[in-house]
Amino acid sequence: MAGSDAPIVVLDSGLGGLTVVQSIHRALPYEQIVYFGDTARLPYGSKTAKVVTQFVRQIIEYLLPLAPKHVVIACNTASALALPAVRELFPELEITGVVEPGAKAAITAAPGAAPVIGVIATEATVRSRAYVLAIQRHRPSAKVICRATPLLVPIIEEGRTAADPLVRMCLEQYLRPVLDQRPCALVLGCTHYPILRDLISQIVGDQVAVIDSADQSAQDVRLRLGSAGKLRHAEMDLAEMLRPAALPPLELSPHPWLRCYVTDDSPRFATLASRFLGIAVRQPEVVLPDLLYANMNIAAASASPF
Amino acid sequence: MAGSDAPIVVLDSGLGGLTVVQSIHRALPYEQIVYFGDTARLPYGSKTAKVVTQFVRQIIEYLLPLAPKHVVIACNTASALALPAVRELFPELEITGVVEPGAKAAITAAPGAAPVIGVIATEATVRSRAYVLAIQRHRPSAKVICRATPLLVPIIEEGRTAADPLVRMCLEQYLRPVLDQRPCALVLGCTHYPILRDLISQIVGDQVAVIDSADQSAQDVRLRLGSAGKLRHAEMDLAEMLRPAALPPLELSPHPWLRCYVTDDSPRFATLASRFLGIAVRQPEVVLPDLLYANMNIAAASASPF
Repeated sequence: MAGSDAPIVVLDSGLGGLTVVQSIHRALPYEQIVYFGDTARLPYGSKTAKVVTQFVRQIIEYLLPLAPKHVVIACNTASALALPAVRELFPELEITGVVEPGAKAAITAAPGAAPVIGVIATEATVRSRAYVLAIQRHRPSAKVICRATPLLVPIIEEGRTAADPLVRMCLEQYLRPVLDQRPCALVLGCTHYPILRDLISQIVGDQVAVIDSADQSAQDVRLRLGSAGKLRHAEMDLAEMLRPAALPPLELSPHPWLRCYVTDDSPRFATLASRFLGIAVRQPEVVLPDLLYANMNIAAASASPF
Repeated sequence: MAGSDAPIVVLDSGLGGLTVVQSIHRALPYEQIVYFGDTARLPYGSKTAKVVTQFVRQIIEYLLPLAPKHVVIACNTASALALPAVRELFPELEITGVVEPGAKAAITAAPGAAPVIGVIATEATVRSRAYVLAIQRHRPSAKVICRATPLLVPIIEEGRTAADPLVRMCLEQYLRPVLDQRPCALVLGCTHYPILRDLISQIVGDQVAVIDSADQSAQDVRLRLGSAGKLRHAEMDLAEMLRPAALPPLELSPHPWLRCYVTDDSPRFATLASRFLGIAVRQPEVVLPDLLYANMNIAAASASPF
């Protein structure tokens, strides 16, 4: 089994998972993180469980030689569609997602036995009902209003900001029917969305708690590694345990704690990554999709039916 | 070599290429068309030449047993990034794209030795400069203004229409800097965009010819098959040759002339396809990406560098 010096793997369809990397690094600054962004095949949010599970399986298989002590599926769509299947495929690994931590954080923020909770997410996450099931497992009478918001990822990846009137119009269109149901909390059910958190908070108003699963996911990893005795030793320092809530900014590059892989377009990733991570990132290594497949030992025989 | 009864293959990253299928069917109603939409890995517009070429190569390799008499890469991004490479890889096939026909149509519509021509397209198509090169090959003094419009594909795939104020705002934002240069033609450099053609025409005004490469691409296929003696015989009927410009509507399903494949989410394709094709489409057959790779005979050895 992987020891305390093994890395934490964080994987995502593209860039959004870097918001989770940032939270994990803040919570666990001594851990080594290996990030994998499947930029050749993103987005996952419009695709099916079968295909997304295939993609996630290939990535984990490829990174297996690193013997990670923990794997975080830092993509809501992949967590919703593929987590149970990949846990079965890799029983030797500790694998967690971001949906369950997000659901827990929403319940903490939403008082009462039957709170109204809004969720914005990709088409595939909404269709999976993963948030509804995760929230109602803890609060069976919660009313969960899910809304697919497929334009938000491309809007964020285009580099548009909260100052752009199109961004505001888009959010207002998506949020209006959710707000009509008077939720007390709104879950940002995609790891891209925290980039627009301030504008979303402004639109939903003070009465609605805006929940981002990144911080909760990082605490989840911290607890699990802690109880398994796998935290890196420096983490155990008393000074670290007393670290104030207001954290120092992450140091600039080089970042020996972070190693990134993508399946396409390393320069584009490096340019956009700083928006998600808040620090400059060097161009990651590229693992083209055919290498992922080759690694899976797929039998080459008679694939064409003609 | 493929005879006149062999099919025409039309491939695309997803759905947009169906606008080209519609034009080909109108120009050549007796031809069999096999459509392949790479819905598991769409969109191509934000990806690199290396990855897009890999994807297109796999699709053609998979469809080779059909011995197509013509292959149309009905995706501007794939035409811009992959066409020369796949022509080299498959010298036995007649392969054409949509950029060259679109460029020719723009020149026909834009008079003078130094016309100003606008092009809206995906990030990857703009970065490739394929339209600039194709237009200036015919009119070296043409001024070509390219604008990446990455939100248009997700806007169209979400099912938004011209009546939605967000669609108008988005188009106005994208088109304003292009219109400031006073173009006499605007090329819709992505096979999705004709869905918004009427609104685009309204925004750019009567002075700007709006060019959609689908019809021109269909004429290109017709000419090439004609001069190779590979048109299906019924096409040669005198009645057909005298067919009026105002064409009859396509018949409803079943459509024996059309066979579709996708790499993911057959029901979603069937639902959205009718918007692009103007007729109901049955759920296509699914070819998961791992079958495409298996078909490529990739050596399984030592892919992981760890």
